[in-house]
Amino acid sequence: MNGAQAVIRTLVGGGVDVCFANPGTSEMHFVAALDDVPEMRAVLTLFEGVATGAADGYARMTGSPAATLLHLGPGMGNGIANLHNARRARTPLVNVVGDHALTHKRLDAPLESDIDALAGTVSGWVRRSLATSQVGADTADAVAAATRGQVATLVLPADVSWSEGGARAAVPARRPTPQVPAAVVEEIAGVLGGSTVLFLGGDAVLEPGLRAAAQVAAGTGTRLLSQRSPARMQRGAGLPDVLKLPYPPESARKQLDGVRHLVLVGAAEPVAFFGYPGMDGRLVPDDCTVHVLTTPAEDGVAALQALAELAAPDATPQVAQARRPELPTGELDTRALAEVVGALLPERAIVVDEALTSGHFLPTATVGSPAHDWLTLTGGAIGQGMPVATGAAVACPDRPVVSLQADGSAMYTIQALWTQAREGLDVTTVICDNSAYAILAGELAAVGAAGGGERAGKLLDLGGPALDFVALATGMGVPATRATTAEELAEQFRTALVEPGPHLIDAVLPRG
Amino acid sequence: MNGAQAVIRTLVGGGVDVCFANPGTSEMHFVAALDDVPEMRAVLTLFEGVATGAADGYARMTGSPAATLLHLGPGMGNGIANLHNARRARTPLVNVVGDHALTHKRLDAPLESDIDALAGTVSGWVRRSLATSQVGADTADAVAAATRGQVATLVLPADVSWSEGGARAAVPARRPTPQVPAAVVEEIAGVLGGSTVLFLGGDAVLEPGLRAAAQVAAGTGTRLLSQRSPARMQRGAGLPDVLKLPYPPESARKQLDGVRHLVLVGAAEPVAFFGYPGMDGRLVPDDCTVHVLTTPAEDGVAALQALAELAAPDATPQVAQARRPELPTGELDTRALAEVVGALLPERAIVVDEALTSGHFLPTATVGSPAHDWLTLTGGAIGQGMPVATGAAVACPDRPVVSLQADGSAMYTIQALWTQAREGLDVTTVICDNSAYAILAGELAAVGAAGGGERAGKLLDLGGPALDFVALATGMGVPATRATTAEELAEQFRTALVEPGPHLIDAVLPRG
Repeated sequence: MNGAQAVIRTLVGGGVDVCFANPGTSEMHFVAALDDVPEMRAVLTLFEGVATGAADGYARMTGSPAATLLHLGPGMGNGIANLHNARRARTPLVNVVGDHALTHKRLDAPLESDIDALAGTVSGWVRRSLATSQVGADTADAVAAATRGQVATLVLPADVSWSEGGARAAVPARRPTPQVPAAVVEEIAGVLGGSTVLFLGGDAVLEPGLRAAAQVAAGTGTRLLSQRSPARMQRGAGLPDVLKLPYPPESARKQLDGVRHLVLVGAAEPVAFFGYPGMDGRLVPDDCTVHVLTTPAEDGVAALQALAELAAPDATPQVAQARRPELPTGELDTRALAEVVGALLPERAIVVDEALTSGHFLPTATVGSPAHDWLTLTGGAIGQGMPVATGAAVACPDRPVVSLQADGSAMYTIQALWTQAREGLDVTTVICDNSAYAILAGELAAVGAAGGGERAGKLLDLGGPALDFVALATGMGVPATRATTAEELAEQFRTALVEPGPHLIDAVLPRG
Repeated sequence: MNGAQAVIRTLVGGGVDVCFANPGTSEMHFVAALDDVPEMRAVLTLFEGVATGAADGYARMTGSPAATLLHLGPGMGNGIANLHNARRARTPLVNVVGDHALTHKRLDAPLESDIDALAGTVSGWVRRSLATSQVGADTADAVAAATRGQVATLVLPADVSWSEGGARAAVPARRPTPQVPAAVVEEIAGVLGGSTVLFLGGDAVLEPGLRAAAQVAAGTGTRLLSQRSPARMQRGAGLPDVLKLPYPPESARKQLDGVRHLVLVGAAEPVAFFGYPGMDGRLVPDDCTVHVLTTPAEDGVAALQALAELAAPDATPQVAQARRPELPTGELDTRALAEVVGALLPERAIVVDEALTSGHFLPTATVGSPAHDWLTLTGGAIGQGMPVATGAAVACPDRPVVSLQADGSAMYTIQALWTQAREGLDVTTVICDNSAYAILAGELAAVGAAGGGERAGKLLDLGGPALDFVALATGMGVPATRATTAEELAEQFRTALVEPGPHLIDAVLPRG
């Protein structure tokens, strides 16, 4: 077999059987090899940021990596923003970047650039495969590295792909997640109580971890908070309801006010998203001690269960009751939008949340909706929502995906809609259309920037000309409608959820 | 003044008075400072690849840099593909990348990443400004560095921007372009003749260089060829017609067959775009000597003029006669498309060519059209055409811009249309709509990739669902029409050229 076939067979053998692809000439043997290995599903995207974001969304739902296929340095560049988000999500991801043939490298052809330097900024593991005989083994190493919760980038020269002499390599069995020693759990048990917060992230915000944490909370009076932007959180009726740390630093500080012990469980210490003049970026009070129950690489669920067993063996976790908001009527604003989502969210939904400023009321409105998964913008690089929704829908074809998307951010990776149409994915996108980079208007004030005059304001305004998301979606094959009242949104959202395949609703909100 | 004001005042003082921007929180003081320095024109884009490509197009037409404003590492990442093209075009460009405040850097906030590593892959000059008192001087150095024909990236921490104590710095006068010693010109004069090719690029493919080169050709029998993808070429009626080296390696080799001396003038030695199995990537015959009249950093025009004076003082350059093709009728194919463009191309047009496989007949069809500028895809990173057209139109508001754009490539930076609408730019975009990555079908065969079966073919096909470019353009505020016959294209092209502001024509071609 040739090198490309060895790569694909090794991937498939290692359980990586979906590839989000934007191929070019240097990847043509990989493309050709797809016909030889039907177990690999290749999903075409029109832009690399869609491919990398979709691979992120896929793995958040399956726990196993997808592959990407990107075209040299510029293709890697186009994929970097969502690889950055994937890195922050600790998503397992095998990033395959084609490169010039080894024999062509020194000629400095037009597409030559430093792929390795680019890859290093977002990858936990980078290797350039240098021999067809080794490319199977290199691929197996990439899969194993990805499985440790990181982006693994395999740079694949064209001649390593096209030459004969490849061999499939076996991917080693996944190592069990490291466990925390009992002594650590015992130490944490000693600081539980009313002035302590368990700060949850990673695996701790999926159902088993949340139940154990809520048991601790119920038995000891310890409070629970979640990191601001977890990769995947489970919530809704019958599950513990954990408040996410708010985005504005002053609100976050208020949540942490009086906390004497902050216990990290699969999360890093919270800091402000940005620095602001005269403000400390740390959020934890000066007299608060930060403890680590588990790092993101350790088994947070087991540690929480051990902690619950030790500190609150008989406590019953509090969970959210099944309760939906009334369907709103009249003006369509961010509150009505949230209520429509909460009232109609289907069973087992996957919610992808890049609503940003328009998402304020979502947590309250959906807490009693049927249990669902909630995927967020982990690394702050906007343009993640629609690709992540795409990948999540590929991962879970039997579950409805609801993609709540701010308008400005939508335009970074709007091409995702085409892949949703092509693959017939059951994604309902709601554009939170306030015709502005509304978050930046707040930031302009928050950084104390003087003026906010006309010329500055123009850089935050998306209204001239207005973006017509119905036309954009239709142009990429996704049926779309526009909602200007709460009733229209409800009706269109219900219809979109019932009909198979992708839909987009342009929810026209008051201008941001 | 604060740091942001010092940056903008220094830029404006140094002649950099256009900024293509995608700001975020860390750039809010820069945004606010725009109200204090009205000489700086800020142009909002919806995606960073549009900003960097527009800055490239702007500088190709003016010879002076524009600035960009990008948001941290992910914003830099989104801009990299077109910065790669700008690097290959030797475009002067000041790339301003906001970063976290210095005081925030160590907190590893979600958007933290290695901007410097990213910047290094596309920039000839990179600096992180560390003090408000120095940021004016850093900016002046960036402008001076850019002016040497490279991307200069200034990383601008938020607190360096927002703190007081900045001062405008003067940008040093531009150094004169290095001249080639007379001895080099004399040596080249000794090898001119029928088996010699002057291989032209950079400044040598603008009118003065072309005239001098054509004079040499007329007087000595030396042949002229241009690099495959010059940043900016001048051509049309009354100007010398110089063949570009073809893309397919076998065609390029045919052009170079029998050449004993290849003289580089502002161009690198030509090589194949990609490597192919069993093929040498070098294109120059083994028995051909490669000479350098000028490197891209040296004054090619002066050297060619000296060469003409020495070797062909009395010769008259051959120039293309004014002659337009007949307007075609009937089926709309790539030949008819080229003939429509050639027949109707207005005076002083700027043509931006990312037509790729659909552009085969364009050179012949337009050689006798009124003199025009032709901007091409310099670095092979697709998604350059529409941003470059946007920047060229900002640079030359009194000239019509014709953007000839392949469909697949269009989707990488389709957001450029919105900026064209917002700024009322006189850009006529013609989408060469063959519903395929047609170039890749050829490449799949060229690399000798086996199969080309159904699954491979699906990755090169854009037809399911078909992209509706009329809807996409309309959705971003650009009036659009669809042409399915040669007559329709001619009529729509003529109308679009007459009406002010941007237009898009979806030219439906036979499927690729």
